[in-house]
Amino acid sequence: MTMNWDTVFAERTSEMKRSTVREILKLTAKPEVISFAGGLPAPELFPIERIREATDTILSERGAEVLQYSTTEGMPELRQLIAKRLSKGKFNISPENILITSGSQQGVDLIARILLDERDRVIVENPTYVGMLSSWKPYHLHFSPVPTDNNGMDVQAIEPLLKDKHKLIYSIPTFQNPQGTTLTLERRQKLAQVLVDNDLLYVEDDPYGELRYSGDPVPTVLQTEAELRNATDVTGNVIYCGTYSKVLTPGLRIGWIAAAFPIIDKLVQAKQATDLHTSTLNQFISYEVARDEEFLTSHIEQLRNVYRQRRDLMLETMTANFPQEVTWTKPEGGLFLMVTMPAKLNAAEILVKALEQNVAFVPCDAFFIGDMGHNTFRLNFSNARPEMIVEGIKRLGAVLKVAMKE
Amino acid sequence: MTMNWDTVFAERTSEMKRSTVREILKLTAKPEVISFAGGLPAPELFPIERIREATDTILSERGAEVLQYSTTEGMPELRQLIAKRLSKGKFNISPENILITSGSQQGVDLIARILLDERDRVIVENPTYVGMLSSWKPYHLHFSPVPTDNNGMDVQAIEPLLKDKHKLIYSIPTFQNPQGTTLTLERRQKLAQVLVDNDLLYVEDDPYGELRYSGDPVPTVLQTEAELRNATDVTGNVIYCGTYSKVLTPGLRIGWIAAAFPIIDKLVQAKQATDLHTSTLNQFISYEVARDEEFLTSHIEQLRNVYRQRRDLMLETMTANFPQEVTWTKPEGGLFLMVTMPAKLNAAEILVKALEQNVAFVPCDAFFIGDMGHNTFRLNFSNARPEMIVEGIKRLGAVLKVAMKE
Repeated sequence: MTMNWDTVFAERTSEMKRSTVREILKLTAKPEVISFAGGLPAPELFPIERIREATDTILSERGAEVLQYSTTEGMPELRQLIAKRLSKGKFNISPENILITSGSQQGVDLIARILLDERDRVIVENPTYVGMLSSWKPYHLHFSPVPTDNNGMDVQAIEPLLKDKHKLIYSIPTFQNPQGTTLTLERRQKLAQVLVDNDLLYVEDDPYGELRYSGDPVPTVLQTEAELRNATDVTGNVIYCGTYSKVLTPGLRIGWIAAAFPIIDKLVQAKQATDLHTSTLNQFISYEVARDEEFLTSHIEQLRNVYRQRRDLMLETMTANFPQEVTWTKPEGGLFLMVTMPAKLNAAEILVKALEQNVAFVPCDAFFIGDMGHNTFRLNFSNARPEMIVEGIKRLGAVLKVAMKE
Repeated sequence: MTMNWDTVFAERTSEMKRSTVREILKLTAKPEVISFAGGLPAPELFPIERIREATDTILSERGAEVLQYSTTEGMPELRQLIAKRLSKGKFNISPENILITSGSQQGVDLIARILLDERDRVIVENPTYVGMLSSWKPYHLHFSPVPTDNNGMDVQAIEPLLKDKHKLIYSIPTFQNPQGTTLTLERRQKLAQVLVDNDLLYVEDDPYGELRYSGDPVPTVLQTEAELRNATDVTGNVIYCGTYSKVLTPGLRIGWIAAAFPIIDKLVQAKQATDLHTSTLNQFISYEVARDEEFLTSHIEQLRNVYRQRRDLMLETMTANFPQEVTWTKPEGGLFLMVTMPAKLNAAEILVKALEQNVAFVPCDAFFIGDMGHNTFRLNFSNARPEMIVEGIKRLGAVLKVAMKE
């Protein structure tokens, strides 16, 4: 008797599928492909030597400790360090408000686990982060999409949705994925007001916040909401997800959640059941590297300089080579921009033609709630070296020009 | 308006609580406490120098690669290595049947995610692994307990349960946690027959299988079931969870699942949404250390020798110091044994008295399905050094003797 695999799986798996992005990444593994598809940081900027030294030191000095099981909450010194960096001015985050996670994806996943019941309503910007959708869709939620423009989510559009009971709002307010756009300060204040007035939870997913290349810095929504309540600590409705993946290195899988203690307490219970704790070694490595503030500041400055050049180069090359009917976002930071083609063009079909020219990107339809976005795609500008950016964008421009004429 | 945290959380969190074991571990952090509470390997046996050298090599030679994002399935060479070690004789596991997880706890958690619907029936040995219960209870399952004796789960007792539809059986067949007992070959064959006859899935949780100190080795249930079907590959009903936590070091959080490809395929989708992938660096470190078969074999041999001595010493000291009304299991391997006191004694109350004497253990009631096991507790013999074992067991014996007279 052979197992009938089709009938074996849980009902929630009907909402699971392999990530389009990660499947495309496999196609682009060929060395001749110029890929703008991933969300990869530039590996040539990884502080490898620093990490090697740090690892050598901690294994030599505290080997038995860094290789042993450890607490679910995370290494106390690392939680302290992250809390301190998130604290700005009077705003003061305590280590008790921090949980270390295995990347910020795990943060997003654990939040759903403790907060969302089947068929709950959740407000999201549209388009939104596809990795959140993969994690949350198996709960069979009702997603209420909010339109976006160059200033981020249209916060005005939230209030009419609130005639129905919603559990929370999720967004990436700073250098959004896939668009690269940022929620303005004015909208952050308005959003904070909506949260407080309606007793709504908000998940601020912020992997890119430190990577600003132009324009004025804006405070986190976490901070903005605390200010509105005249609070100097994290006791409000915002649950903040951060990560070292973009400012240090993603292979260590070290992220964190900052939130009110009742949320952290419940998240700890969920994380215990999920994977006991995040790698002790990787927490120690991250702490050892990141506690050198001078190094971290200058390292992030270097990332900003290199990524700024790549962003500018990509934008210039697009202007010179893309057909004029095609438009795109102009991000002030982060890793991505989003391209919108005329409605008659389909990004999945364009991708096939682009791959024939050995250039790759990610179609954005999977980032949208509802049947839309088929004419949009995401470009990453952090990973490819300058000459590759120029060559890849030229090839893509040629593909688009041909497609426009067909 | 302040958030009413009591009404915020998802319904499934009513089944979440902080792990008793991990909370007791916090109490035992004081250096004067002799703790038999954890499931910790002996840190003085960690191959620290080997890990330090391996890490140095891979960061020097392949730094950009080992610190970058990587595939959800796991590092191909590591999957190959694990597949090869699990293959025995004609039984041949392919790397496509392996998913790398963040510890075997994540394996157990992901399995529930893809297989279990609310209110599904699941068969477990009683007592069973408390970490599985923390992960699975939020799904509101119906657990059908099967009694155990010194030969492991009473497989005969499974058939009558099957008048109700069950989704799967979960157990630790080899050096079980908390009892340390092992399912005999005869019972493994009977179990495999039950699985095949009833088209039932079986989760074989096997973190301790390599740690045998006496008695004859038995094949895994994975292998036993394949043999019954005359299969030489993994296409059957067994889902196997393994880990490097006990044979190398737990701080890296590297485990794996071996299963039929349709199961692995679905697990990959669930893991993508959960944490993208397991730490690239830690997979490379584990591969670099474990691929030296001669080293791994001699390292495991050393663990066996040291743990065998500690087990024997604990058993001898118990015989000499525990009141005769108290009984315990005599494991052939693993990390634990379980003590049963007369029914009038309560392990939680004894723990309070033991902690006053600076000695700790884990009461086992949380490991049992149903209101039972209050007179049982678990002792770990791998973590404490010999003189601590003698002193701790003497103290515990004194506490038990006083309690017996009260």
